[in-house]
Amino acid sequence: MIADYVRNARVEDLPERVRKEVVRTFVNWMGVTIGGSRHESVGIAIAALQPFFGRAEADLVGRTERIDVLHAALINGIASHVLDFDDTHLKTIIHPAGPVVSAILPLAQRQKITGVEFLHALALGIEIECRIGNAIYPSHYDAGWHITGSCGVFGSTVAAGKLLGLDTQQLTCAIGIAASQPVGLKVQFGTMTKSFHVGRAAQNGLVAAMLAANGFTSDGTALEGKDGFAQATSKLARWEEVTEGLGSRFEAALNTYKPFACGIVTHPAIDAAIQLRSAAQPLLEEIEAIELDANPLVLSLTGKTDPMTGLESKFSIYHCIAVGLLYGAAGEREFQDAIAIDPAVRRLRRTVTVRTDPSILARQCDLTIRFRNGTVLTRHVEHAVGSVENPLSDRAIDDKAVALANGVLAPNRVRRLLDECWALQRQPDAGSLAVLAKA
Amino acid sequence: MIADYVRNARVEDLPERVRKEVVRTFVNWMGVTIGGSRHESVGIAIAALQPFFGRAEADLVGRTERIDVLHAALINGIASHVLDFDDTHLKTIIHPAGPVVSAILPLAQRQKITGVEFLHALALGIEIECRIGNAIYPSHYDAGWHITGSCGVFGSTVAAGKLLGLDTQQLTCAIGIAASQPVGLKVQFGTMTKSFHVGRAAQNGLVAAMLAANGFTSDGTALEGKDGFAQATSKLARWEEVTEGLGSRFEAALNTYKPFACGIVTHPAIDAAIQLRSAAQPLLEEIEAIELDANPLVLSLTGKTDPMTGLESKFSIYHCIAVGLLYGAAGEREFQDAIAIDPAVRRLRRTVTVRTDPSILARQCDLTIRFRNGTVLTRHVEHAVGSVENPLSDRAIDDKAVALANGVLAPNRVRRLLDECWALQRQPDAGSLAVLAKA
Repeated sequence: MIADYVRNARVEDLPERVRKEVVRTFVNWMGVTIGGSRHESVGIAIAALQPFFGRAEADLVGRTERIDVLHAALINGIASHVLDFDDTHLKTIIHPAGPVVSAILPLAQRQKITGVEFLHALALGIEIECRIGNAIYPSHYDAGWHITGSCGVFGSTVAAGKLLGLDTQQLTCAIGIAASQPVGLKVQFGTMTKSFHVGRAAQNGLVAAMLAANGFTSDGTALEGKDGFAQATSKLARWEEVTEGLGSRFEAALNTYKPFACGIVTHPAIDAAIQLRSAAQPLLEEIEAIELDANPLVLSLTGKTDPMTGLESKFSIYHCIAVGLLYGAAGEREFQDAIAIDPAVRRLRRTVTVRTDPSILARQCDLTIRFRNGTVLTRHVEHAVGSVENPLSDRAIDDKAVALANGVLAPNRVRRLLDECWALQRQPDAGSLAVLAKA
Repeated sequence: MIADYVRNARVEDLPERVRKEVVRTFVNWMGVTIGGSRHESVGIAIAALQPFFGRAEADLVGRTERIDVLHAALINGIASHVLDFDDTHLKTIIHPAGPVVSAILPLAQRQKITGVEFLHALALGIEIECRIGNAIYPSHYDAGWHITGSCGVFGSTVAAGKLLGLDTQQLTCAIGIAASQPVGLKVQFGTMTKSFHVGRAAQNGLVAAMLAANGFTSDGTALEGKDGFAQATSKLARWEEVTEGLGSRFEAALNTYKPFACGIVTHPAIDAAIQLRSAAQPLLEEIEAIELDANPLVLSLTGKTDPMTGLESKFSIYHCIAVGLLYGAAGEREFQDAIAIDPAVRRLRRTVTVRTDPSILARQCDLTIRFRNGTVLTRHVEHAVGSVENPLSDRAIDDKAVALANGVLAPNRVRRLLDECWALQRQPDAGSLAVLAKA
């Protein structure tokens, strides 16, 4: 069923609105991957595996190394996820682009792939990984699997398989080989191995597709059959989630992009703070109290009152609100060590009180700012910016990518690269984007 | 705990009888891996991944290719398992040598490893993969996992980690990275992906150890912790199976070696047939009836009455008994296509009747041969040859390896290689064995 669909899918049948969302997904991937490309974990992975790199066919995003396609998928995938700033399919908490783009961008330097073909493969990858995720979520996730790795491998497999021109039988085998290699446990959150999951999912998908292309066999029921993937990794599987509306309802259209470089539970409050910023700005010194009414998850996940490092500050709702008001942003910059201990930030976050109420949904909040002169500003957020209902604008995605990439590549190169990424559908050679994205 | 043990373990503390068993394991691995090295699935994997091979540092067993260490682990691992003729840890049905030797033999061509160091790493690998298997078997296996892949990765990881000189912290990280990459589903039995599991476990273990050696981090509770490996892959975990008697009771001492190239459930009957062969030989034409009394599993797993291919004949208890009587052997040769349809074999297997009885254990059987002249031969088997209680002799392991390797390498080379493998503890350079084992 999946193999048939992937084999026969035509890009002409992909609605324009879905294509646009896939391009947004791609631009967001490019920004976060360049942004993550100099992270320590990326450097360690390269140093560890460099002795085994093969023919230099693929450029690493944001870096100078040119390495083999399989390892490039691994390294790009680590970089794509290491900032925890990538795209999110909210129904499954899968970060869809990481496993897929990290695999097919290097592939586009090995074989000629047009921008439209690339976009289509990415759309198919997202579709299949998220639909398989839909079928087994939340049981699979609750069992302990880091679903972006354990389901992401199906995305990279079908995307690579489509681009390699696999027939239905070969695609079935590729999906079977992928099913035997789920990567990722939630226990790794907070360690480098979390990002490794995404890279390995990208790499494993490429390997599965390459093996199948050459006639390697696997079981045709590896996903759903007895002693197969779903049985081994989930208590439940609703396979109609995979099949219903396949080709007419697109999971890629449900993708979202984090505007803020921290956990999604803080986003409504940051959104509210940024919205109140222009009104509050002239009176910042006069703030008496900031009150947040929010779901209890906000305090249980991000309740650190006085974080002393950048990483800790991501888990402080107090810090998040303070930087939203002070800087109108909550990107990587606002979670640096220096900002976490900045006196103005610390002073402002001490004024914040959080009241929790289970009747407030996690996506909602009310923010109130009381000034000494008696002025009160309030803002209700129903759907935070970056949600499906209140999506990030193209401009905001571009701004985010620019902010992440500018520290790594020269600004004029970043601008040119992002312009070409937005124009993905007009690219004669998607591999040229990897060349532009290298350092 | 595991990391501490592996870090501090000294080969001097390994009893001589355990060392001898590990050498037997190694010789058996060498025979089955050379025997499997020309299988179609090995050729396909090489063809598919050859474009990505890195620096040629390791020779493939039984073949002419010299490739990078990581891919050599994968390819050797596929070859080691493809004949389904490898060693078996009966408590868990783990095939212990495959993931471990396939990883560290290539490593021994990248860095100097003495025979004793190699033996010790292999012993530690077997110990840890089997103890983790003991802790989660049978729940883990019942869930659908092909345990040789999903637990084998811990064997390759600690063996490689020991040889790389990792400290306790690094070993803990390596085990964590391994925990995120279990490979293998039982649904793949009967396909090439079954062997891929073993190779990928070998390769993943090397990658985990290399990453950890360079400072890549993972969670220290990835095996047993919340949202960790055991939670995600098994309903039960008895961790005392890992810790009790560690360093004094050795799982490697419980390893067994298949004397026959088919499922273990047929082995008692084949053993009985071979034992009756010399008495029955002069009267083969006079056989009226052969009666087997056996456990019901024998018929449910191997009940094919008239197999038409070599592969099918492995699942025919009738064929197994016939070749045991006719040839006194049941190796790869006796399961070739030509033998499956040989008129003498077919005639003899038609005389076999199987009576099943649940009170007969799977390891037992009674074989009766009735001749037209009234003669009756019977043989009871309590523990088939190749079991822990009735182990294969060194000579039988050597004979098996010779039979498997002679079709691939020149007989004088095979003899020299096996002599050197038996002398593993005296080798100054274990890597030299990989050179001898190449074609």
